[in-house]
Amino acid sequence: MPGERRYVGLDVGGTTMKAAVVDDAGRPLSEPVVLDTNPERGQDAGLETMCETIRRAVAAAKLKPADVTAIGVATPGLMDIKAGLILDPPNLKPWKNVPVRDHIKKAFGKPTAYQNDANAAAYGEFWVGAAQEAKSMVLFTLGTGVGGGIILGDVVVEGEHSHGGELGHLRIDTPDRGRLCGCGARGCLEAYASATNVVRRAREDMAAWRGDTKLRDYFTANDDELTAKTVFDLADAGDELAAKVVDDTAYYLALGACAVTAAVDPEMIVFGGGMAEAGEPLRARIEAYVKRFGLPHPSKSVKVTLAKLGSDAGFIGAAGCARLLVQGT
Amino acid sequence: MPGERRYVGLDVGGTTMKAAVVDDAGRPLSEPVVLDTNPERGQDAGLETMCETIRRAVAAAKLKPADVTAIGVATPGLMDIKAGLILDPPNLKPWKNVPVRDHIKKAFGKPTAYQNDANAAAYGEFWVGAAQEAKSMVLFTLGTGVGGGIILGDVVVEGEHSHGGELGHLRIDTPDRGRLCGCGARGCLEAYASATNVVRRAREDMAAWRGDTKLRDYFTANDDELTAKTVFDLADAGDELAAKVVDDTAYYLALGACAVTAAVDPEMIVFGGGMAEAGEPLRARIEAYVKRFGLPHPSKSVKVTLAKLGSDAGFIGAAGCARLLVQGT
Repeated sequence: MPGERRYVGLDVGGTTMKAAVVDDAGRPLSEPVVLDTNPERGQDAGLETMCETIRRAVAAAKLKPADVTAIGVATPGLMDIKAGLILDPPNLKPWKNVPVRDHIKKAFGKPTAYQNDANAAAYGEFWVGAAQEAKSMVLFTLGTGVGGGIILGDVVVEGEHSHGGELGHLRIDTPDRGRLCGCGARGCLEAYASATNVVRRAREDMAAWRGDTKLRDYFTANDDELTAKTVFDLADAGDELAAKVVDDTAYYLALGACAVTAAVDPEMIVFGGGMAEAGEPLRARIEAYVKRFGLPHPSKSVKVTLAKLGSDAGFIGAAGCARLLVQGT
Repeated sequence: MPGERRYVGLDVGGTTMKAAVVDDAGRPLSEPVVLDTNPERGQDAGLETMCETIRRAVAAAKLKPADVTAIGVATPGLMDIKAGLILDPPNLKPWKNVPVRDHIKKAFGKPTAYQNDANAAAYGEFWVGAAQEAKSMVLFTLGTGVGGGIILGDVVVEGEHSHGGELGHLRIDTPDRGRLCGCGARGCLEAYASATNVVRRAREDMAAWRGDTKLRDYFTANDDELTAKTVFDLADAGDELAAKVVDDTAYYLALGACAVTAAVDPEMIVFGGGMAEAGEPLRARIEAYVKRFGLPHPSKSVKVTLAKLGSDAGFIGAAGCARLLVQGT
């Protein structure tokens, strides 16, 4: 069918990689194909798994590789987006300097876009998700860490050193007093609002809490049973301390949102990732704090929403980046 | 001369407005024409003064209005950039909802660009100033307040509500502990690093200082004699407390630079405005703190420089925005 364009989007994570063919309207043509990444098997095996995931995604859509217009690949940082290289991401050890874009491009003979995974997820939400109607948007991804992506009028803010939208490292407290972040600095948003740090703060708050709290039931000798989800669930169920931990989380996320609003003043701020499944109560609190603590004019107008594409945002966005790449051709 | 393009850039401030014709390479064809703004005379008089400034700038370049390709106008916020409106800026009282762009466009019959003044200054430095070789840049303007502008690959980040690059309101301390800002919030960069607040901090530090300091000589009953310039000069001359105040200023500015780096990861961060005349010692300290407190990868690569165009950046950048407007036509 001439004129009908189809893009493969591939989202590579530390545990699995996920791909599907997506049409020109952003609709996946099948359920995504998911394969284990197994980074420990080395980068050559990794590149082959990427190709295999793409091939299976094309087959799942009942297409041949020749039917594909372009391919988009998203990977976690560190990376060199312009050069198409995975550098040495902590969750893809021991990969180092992997020429992803050129490898995929050569393997399939198709134009290949390359993007940071959080940026791709942001572009997915911008293209066909929560921010579909917006002209600019910022995505915060709330998971083990806090990531982000900024899209301004169809432009993905990649950054000059491939670090655009590193929103987990917006500082929300000072370097001398802030919480210690995994990056070595103090005060980063991630040190407050990642799932790991929600649990840490819950523990700290519990140690100082005079009243009762169901949170204590989840503490065993090895205290592995408390998760961010439990904290949010207990808050929903009316536990006062859990509710405080959740409210603090919304406050910290709002401070991050205020910072990025002062910088780029987007039309919409979207919260995605596992923790965003806490849903409307969390969203509403973040929004209230953005309006309370942000610069009045843009904060009163900025829309605060939840992501819509779930964990499909990455491969859909990667496909969208492929579409951008060949737009006008 | 067919093909030779010339742009008028007009930079409207609360005290004066300034215009000149600029050629396609960003060179002003004359000294800028400067007229008093006199906002208290009302907005109709203001619009007429803008037209008069433009007419005189054209005459100063020994041209006729017909020789001009396009016009660019920059004004301070609050504004609606897309609609071409001055809303109600504090330093242009009592002006309200002034249709600047359409008025100028109609008066001269030329394509007219409209931009925020700090964004225009940023574009000026990006086009032909400190960031001429950079692909993306962020400008902090250090004056009575702290303003800013972000340019990403020839795109001025205007923001969805005309508040892109409001870098004085990046928060560098928490809402419960930070210094009170003119905007009503606490912890904004401007509450630390504007000229006014450098003097305030000097006063506060002096009140707690056990040692000697020449700063005390500048305190009279009405304590109007201490300026930010004096603080910087005394620091240069070896005064220990003044040096601390300057060092703190560099630290605070670096925290703002770190925040904007985490958001958009620019190639270059430029410091301009009156206070940037403190020059290399201030720049070097800011740079050291950016590398010390920023996200390692982008911070080690980002260039920290001083603005080059001085107070001409605004009208040159406004002319550059006019040039962007008609590019490709």
